[in-house]
Amino acid sequence: MTNVDFLVANATVITMNEAFDVFTPGAVAIDGGRIVAVGAAHDVARVYHGRQTVDVGGKAVIPGLVNAHTHVPMSLLRGLADDLRLDVWLMGYMMPVEREFVSPDFVRLGTLLACAEMIRSGVTTFADMYYFEEHVAQATAEAGMRALCSQSVLKFPSPDAGTYEDSLAMARDYILRWKGHPLVVPSVAPHAPYTATPELLRAAAELAAETDTPLQIHLSETALEVETSREEHGMPVIPWVEKNGLFQAKVLAAHCVHIDSSEMRTLRRAHAGVAHNPTSNLKLGSGIAPVKQMLATGLNVGIGTDGPASNNDLDMFEEMRLAALIAKGTTGDPTTLPARQAFAMATIQGAKAMHLGHLTGSLEVGKRADLAVVNLNDLHHTPHFDRDPDAIYSRLVYGSKATDVTDVMVEGRWLMRHRVLLTLREDDLHRAAQDYAHRIDTFLIQREQSVLSKLAAIGGMEQEESFEVQVKAHVADPAQVIDAIERGPLAVQRRSHYRQFDTYFFFDDPDQGRLRYREDAFINARGETYRTRYRLTLTLPAKEREFERSILLSRSRFIAPAGHSRRFYREYFHPTGEREIEKDRLRWLVTYRDTDFFINLDRVVRPTQPGYFLELKARTWSKRDAEDKARLLGELLDLFGISTEDTIKEEYLDMLATATL
Amino acid sequence: MTNVDFLVANATVITMNEAFDVFTPGAVAIDGGRIVAVGAAHDVARVYHGRQTVDVGGKAVIPGLVNAHTHVPMSLLRGLADDLRLDVWLMGYMMPVEREFVSPDFVRLGTLLACAEMIRSGVTTFADMYYFEEHVAQATAEAGMRALCSQSVLKFPSPDAGTYEDSLAMARDYILRWKGHPLVVPSVAPHAPYTATPELLRAAAELAAETDTPLQIHLSETALEVETSREEHGMPVIPWVEKNGLFQAKVLAAHCVHIDSSEMRTLRRAHAGVAHNPTSNLKLGSGIAPVKQMLATGLNVGIGTDGPASNNDLDMFEEMRLAALIAKGTTGDPTTLPARQAFAMATIQGAKAMHLGHLTGSLEVGKRADLAVVNLNDLHHTPHFDRDPDAIYSRLVYGSKATDVTDVMVEGRWLMRHRVLLTLREDDLHRAAQDYAHRIDTFLIQREQSVLSKLAAIGGMEQEESFEVQVKAHVADPAQVIDAIERGPLAVQRRSHYRQFDTYFFFDDPDQGRLRYREDAFINARGETYRTRYRLTLTLPAKEREFERSILLSRSRFIAPAGHSRRFYREYFHPTGEREIEKDRLRWLVTYRDTDFFINLDRVVRPTQPGYFLELKARTWSKRDAEDKARLLGELLDLFGISTEDTIKEEYLDMLATATL
Repeated sequence: MTNVDFLVANATVITMNEAFDVFTPGAVAIDGGRIVAVGAAHDVARVYHGRQTVDVGGKAVIPGLVNAHTHVPMSLLRGLADDLRLDVWLMGYMMPVEREFVSPDFVRLGTLLACAEMIRSGVTTFADMYYFEEHVAQATAEAGMRALCSQSVLKFPSPDAGTYEDSLAMARDYILRWKGHPLVVPSVAPHAPYTATPELLRAAAELAAETDTPLQIHLSETALEVETSREEHGMPVIPWVEKNGLFQAKVLAAHCVHIDSSEMRTLRRAHAGVAHNPTSNLKLGSGIAPVKQMLATGLNVGIGTDGPASNNDLDMFEEMRLAALIAKGTTGDPTTLPARQAFAMATIQGAKAMHLGHLTGSLEVGKRADLAVVNLNDLHHTPHFDRDPDAIYSRLVYGSKATDVTDVMVEGRWLMRHRVLLTLREDDLHRAAQDYAHRIDTFLIQREQSVLSKLAAIGGMEQEESFEVQVKAHVADPAQVIDAIERGPLAVQRRSHYRQFDTYFFFDDPDQGRLRYREDAFINARGETYRTRYRLTLTLPAKEREFERSILLSRSRFIAPAGHSRRFYREYFHPTGEREIEKDRLRWLVTYRDTDFFINLDRVVRPTQPGYFLELKARTWSKRDAEDKARLLGELLDLFGISTEDTIKEEYLDMLATATL
Repeated sequence: MTNVDFLVANATVITMNEAFDVFTPGAVAIDGGRIVAVGAAHDVARVYHGRQTVDVGGKAVIPGLVNAHTHVPMSLLRGLADDLRLDVWLMGYMMPVEREFVSPDFVRLGTLLACAEMIRSGVTTFADMYYFEEHVAQATAEAGMRALCSQSVLKFPSPDAGTYEDSLAMARDYILRWKGHPLVVPSVAPHAPYTATPELLRAAAELAAETDTPLQIHLSETALEVETSREEHGMPVIPWVEKNGLFQAKVLAAHCVHIDSSEMRTLRRAHAGVAHNPTSNLKLGSGIAPVKQMLATGLNVGIGTDGPASNNDLDMFEEMRLAALIAKGTTGDPTTLPARQAFAMATIQGAKAMHLGHLTGSLEVGKRADLAVVNLNDLHHTPHFDRDPDAIYSRLVYGSKATDVTDVMVEGRWLMRHRVLLTLREDDLHRAAQDYAHRIDTFLIQREQSVLSKLAAIGGMEQEESFEVQVKAHVADPAQVIDAIERGPLAVQRRSHYRQFDTYFFFDDPDQGRLRYREDAFINARGETYRTRYRLTLTLPAKEREFERSILLSRSRFIAPAGHSRRFYREYFHPTGEREIEKDRLRWLVTYRDTDFFINLDRVVRPTQPGYFLELKARTWSKRDAEDKARLLGELLDLFGISTEDTIKEEYLDMLATATL
């Protein structure tokens, strides 16, 4: 008899070895964190004696589940914002909150919380990609889980680095320090092709190759990403990253929703693994990955939950069931992705996709002792049939819940026994996480108190407050006005012609002001559009002062370039009303008495409005300056032959509202 | 103060009323099985005093979930056969097992088991359709759940009736006896259009209209069903059932996977409800129902688990999450089917779809007290955000598990408290269910011991054992043979010409014999196919006797018409090998010396084989008769001028195997 640390006995042992051996009753002998025997109970017990014998009472013993793609610290953002389009979700909520809150403390707590949830649901290994990754690694090791912990690198400033060179340096340092750790495999993660430069991709791949560590990346998650790649690089995503040297590294590619058969072969040749994230891809409307075809190509396809902010949990039982179901539903073939194959994806294939197949993913002699005990005898499993040897996989995939997991071991150490966590304190985690949630709620509530603060929160935008003196008037004869501008005492600095498409967003509370999304299509002499400019203007209701002849010292306004679509702003700001106005505008920048003025000669095209309108405007900064400029505006009105009764106090929007609309 | 039976207090009350009111902290006052007050805790407590006050400790109180389509007794067949195509699953497994096992005892046990599982997962109301439905109703009432229990009616014999007239009479009797029951709404369910006649549909609808009870039916579940309806009736499914009077009843239509916008409007006009079954539709490869469009049309769409044999459980939390996810994934729009709407489908909309919206589905004064208490503070819910009032629905839909349900009440009676069932004994159910499973396993194992028993088990087939004396030979001059047949001493009774397409299925164990799937395309004088016949022949290896000149008393054979496709038999029988042979055959039935003989003159077209072959055969039934006929066969060989060296002992298959293949 050989003494070993543990003998796990009286089990249905589901090995997930190449022969898919199942032993009933079976046993697993574990020593020094490794599996030293797996087999029929009597065979194992004849040779090995456990210093601790764990009789699991007929339950199933499975390889610990492998979550092949996630962002564990985002457990702290679970349910923060749901049912939103990817850009609104990411740029309207996730990124502003991450900019504000992500810190070593945040990622540590989020990691511990996620580990607690994953251990409870039978996961022993995961692939993470986030910021401050060394703190993720540290927390993972404390929780006792196995993980590929990948330091994100982006071409933009991120919560943990100002430049990608800083990120890469940090990643190198971290990898060198952690390489060889029994639980954590350190690695680098260029976030995605569209957030990388060719140099960044190549440098990250070189770092991974040099340190012989895997490289994690998001590839071809959305159709838009592929379209953009085709436009910008003349090829889809996989060839472009190949061209930029990515595949010199051992790659774990998350998503691969929109790849074709040639790209699959490229991944296969590169020995890249794929992480399929069905919930996240469905929930964010990204699509459904061609899993059947990827498997047929011979790719190792694992299953991931993605971050809990887009899932909203880390439940691999839900995830593998969903993978099996949607593969059938989309192919129309119920024999696609049978239960055993789905379970393989959640275990051994996931481990191989992460390039950790030599360590974990199956119960085989020599591998690390990573396992979970699952109760398959609860009511929702009743009854069960034993005729078909694959029925056990059906029970695991179609019939099991995360809560059926009773015990979990990683590297020969029990992390949960009888549903009690042994390495983590749930109450403390719960309290600390809820404290973060309160702070984030407060931050967002403050932000959402005004359109202005929401505008500010999207970040990346310049924010600018401007004051103007201005006057507007009906024009009977536009030719006369043009003549007066071009031949009068004004020095014309610049002239332009554009179509201006304005969308006004209204809010129930008039104090919020009006938000205008504006597209200016500049038109050249041949009548062609040669440039389009997108801007946002928030106009608050305050009028500072009114002078004679409808001359106004106007509203405080905030102007910013509009980097997103009108649809984005609509879904982000939730206006209660919306109106569109389209104008044809001739615009001059002129100097009159050493003062710059803008002159607009407008025709309102939609809703159709007869006649022409003149707008005269000047920036101002003080009361005194405003008074001076108001006086000059009066002189200009005289110059253009415009009488007081032709002036208009209202903005176009209000003028049209009271007119033909 | 008014005394009431129960005051459920210290709760987050999610009412699902029209305003989607949520009360935190809220309370519900219950008396006589009905809700008498719902609102803010202090408002309710000011007026009502509970004879029993139940402090739920801040948990959520939701309307009990509504499972809008299932077959509860099929819980006993859960996981029996998975990852199979619909026809193989249904006709190869479900129907043979149902024919053998379904009885009042079976449906009673299956119902109790399913009720236990549903109560545990927060379901209070379900729509069932099965056989012996009165026994389902009885068991449901004992478990204390609310249900629409629909007696199935089919045009074929079913486990509980020989004809549909019998089923209808039974349904009428059952409905009249149970109408007005506080928990069970009795009803009739013509199973589906393709298992009904127009008369059956009309009679069922009339019964439902006359008794003012809902009618349940499967509609447009698969694309094949719709195609067949177009072919046979010249219209898709919904117009056809409308034409046949179905919508005089209050219809609950299960599935509706393949319906167009005009059919949706028809359902809307008919006030029909729809039950969406996402897991079942995906798992059986039926497709994904156009839920977004159905909701936009104004249909009441509930969510169902379908039977646990195709799911494999009755978990409405999984089901509503899946509904929300696939609606986003298939439209590519993550704002589709937001959490609140998905939760409405699982509660109030489901109740309305079942035509029980006046009784249940929301927590409103006057409705029956059907509710569930859900713990939303477990680890997988941590943290949670309160900024967005819809976040509570996100937690329920994206983050909750069936095991988060702690307490369930129906009609003011607690069915579960602190996760302990109060009306059912789980251990007894488990034991009894497992006993059925063992018997079913034994039945299937016996059946699957031989190809012959599997063939017999599909049922609906005539089974016939035949013995033949036969001889086969090479033919040098086919014209001479034809001449001899037509002008010789033979009386030709019948002649035919056909292409014969044979597919042979082989099995590892040669004792299993060979199964031949045969298509005969009959050809008329103009060379056109005018009829096709499909047959299965199982040939067991035994040769009874060999006479002189290669004349054989042949193998015992089992012949049956082949009602399914070749693909069906391949997936049902799992042959380990397969071979195809195509022949062009002239066939005569002749009488020679008062004895009938079949004569085949064959050319082997594929795999191409030179020359012609003659087969002479006669049915036989005794040793003596076989000897006589063998002698006559010898005479016929002489008549056709065929010498002994031209005769062949092998079947075509073996002959070809040793020849050109």
